[in-house]
Amino acid sequence: MDNDWLQQPCAVLHEAARSAALARQEQLTKPPGALGRLEDIAVQLAAWQGVAQPTLQRIHISIFAADHGVAEEGVSLFPQAVTAEMVRNFARGGAAISVLARQLNADLEVINLGTVTAVEPLPGVRDERIAAGTANLARTPAMTQAQCTEALQAGRNAAVRAKHADAQLFVGGEMGIANTTSASALACALLGESPHNLAGRGTGLDAAGVSHKADVIAAALVLHGVEGVRIEAQEILRRLGGFEIAGLAGAYIAAAQLGLPILVDGFISSVAALVAVRINPSARAWMLFAHTSAEAGHQRVLSALDAQPLLQLGMRLGEGSGAAVAVPLLQLACTLHSGMATFAEAGVSEQH
Amino acid sequence: MDNDWLQQPCAVLHEAARSAALARQEQLTKPPGALGRLEDIAVQLAAWQGVAQPTLQRIHISIFAADHGVAEEGVSLFPQAVTAEMVRNFARGGAAISVLARQLNADLEVINLGTVTAVEPLPGVRDERIAAGTANLARTPAMTQAQCTEALQAGRNAAVRAKHADAQLFVGGEMGIANTTSASALACALLGESPHNLAGRGTGLDAAGVSHKADVIAAALVLHGVEGVRIEAQEILRRLGGFEIAGLAGAYIAAAQLGLPILVDGFISSVAALVAVRINPSARAWMLFAHTSAEAGHQRVLSALDAQPLLQLGMRLGEGSGAAVAVPLLQLACTLHSGMATFAEAGVSEQH
Repeated sequence: MDNDWLQQPCAVLHEAARSAALARQEQLTKPPGALGRLEDIAVQLAAWQGVAQPTLQRIHISIFAADHGVAEEGVSLFPQAVTAEMVRNFARGGAAISVLARQLNADLEVINLGTVTAVEPLPGVRDERIAAGTANLARTPAMTQAQCTEALQAGRNAAVRAKHADAQLFVGGEMGIANTTSASALACALLGESPHNLAGRGTGLDAAGVSHKADVIAAALVLHGVEGVRIEAQEILRRLGGFEIAGLAGAYIAAAQLGLPILVDGFISSVAALVAVRINPSARAWMLFAHTSAEAGHQRVLSALDAQPLLQLGMRLGEGSGAAVAVPLLQLACTLHSGMATFAEAGVSEQH
Repeated sequence: MDNDWLQQPCAVLHEAARSAALARQEQLTKPPGALGRLEDIAVQLAAWQGVAQPTLQRIHISIFAADHGVAEEGVSLFPQAVTAEMVRNFARGGAAISVLARQLNADLEVINLGTVTAVEPLPGVRDERIAAGTANLARTPAMTQAQCTEALQAGRNAAVRAKHADAQLFVGGEMGIANTTSASALACALLGESPHNLAGRGTGLDAAGVSHKADVIAAALVLHGVEGVRIEAQEILRRLGGFEIAGLAGAYIAAAQLGLPILVDGFISSVAALVAVRINPSARAWMLFAHTSAEAGHQRVLSALDAQPLLQLGMRLGEGSGAAVAVPLLQLACTLHSGMATFAEAGVSEQH
């Protein structure tokens, strides 16, 4: 297995379709720009799909699950067993993303990239365990080269499956106890930020817990020598990341290469998107950002990606849930764009 | 016809259902609070519906349309004929709110409270014209006492129809060329604000247009003697409002009295909500605010209502469109609340 695919150029957007969609927006029976971001979304989807009137019906959701060695540093309120328990909950339909996927009539798959304990075979869950969780990034690189490569490839495979299923939108999600610690460490290393600015409450730490988490990250940044040093993104991912974060990054790059639009979820997904864009900058053009998480560091990561998310609902669950919640807005944007009458069709007077 | 009904107390919320919904939220398989505003919505709907697990299927949308005498002051980019033309567009399904109502499977009715020209009978349009538009508020009170009473009553009738149809949510919308001028004048009078702070671009005025609009409003505030003087809200409504704004205010008060939850749209609807709450403060408890409009004065009006809207999408269309766009979020909030497994059901470990 090699990583050469990561650098392949991403698909080119359809500028003629974008122009046609913009022209249509100007003719619809409303003041120009009055639908705000919904107009931008329709036009963006046109440029992605190569048609003046895009549609959005087939949604693919891939949830990457894995455990983190850094959990042993006491950085999460929940026991590590929850990662595997939630994999079962995803499969049985009781998790937030399961409920949302049903409501959206979306395809949902869970890819187990490395829970600490094995999970029995379950419908909708792919057992692709690389190891029983990553190594503890506070003591050693989280992944070997081979593991990181495998996780990126697992993400790519998910994007390929989505493309083969004719999906119109790729939503990635994640589950992994302690993964806000890993994601915050990655963001600090990639952005040159202090963990004391960037670390957040995760699943609900108090101030002392956040401070401890930031100390763990700060020590790890020193240990791995990434503080103020220019190391390539993939190596930072290997040392500080997690299987599910690498999986997301690989999926985003591959989706962009395949011309499959990406709706990015919250903090951890955005960090994976940042890793993806640092590895392959042309991936950015295929990403839309769903929401601003309540997790403290998210805004900083979004700014680095020049991303303006659609929603600000104070969500901080992960699982792709914030992205799924935004899907109906994208669908309404398409429906308005195609379904509204033009001034000429409706016999409505235009402005003076 | 009298106005005594306006002061009748609004329905009481179901606090036991609210508590039961809160208790359920704490048991669902997610960190407490991780669904952010979606949790608040589910709990609020429980308190409104009197059940621990609310649903939201039957949406009623009433669009009030009317013209404004103040249009003759040159405060809008669009000719006054557009109000009637848009009534036709609503009925024929080509307007944004028509498209959204279809997508939401909502009941949509249009109440013509006073276009300058009569509109031929159309399906889904109620001809309840009070006059050929209001009088020019820059010269004289916009409405007579009888007209204002009639418009409020027309709104009440719409809420009663919605309740009789067993609606679970009332969405009000409006259409009326020059109605941001009327709404801004009302907001200034009710809040003691300067029109130069509050007047906005409406359907797309440039800076000179906004400045002229603010001048027109400032002169009207002096003319009507409402500047710095404590006049009751209903009289301010009569002097500076419009038929459709009074219709919305009456509908909001009646919906709250009937225990029918209200989803408030953008700037003009929020001004109508402010009028309603000033007339009958107990109406506030039945209102949820859908979005922050791009119209300049909206945030000020929202603050006065202590409202935190769900969406910030830069919309500024009116018609109830921003409220309609928020409906799927409310529905997903209900679906998550009822459909997710509890920790016990899913066998997922709780936090340490």
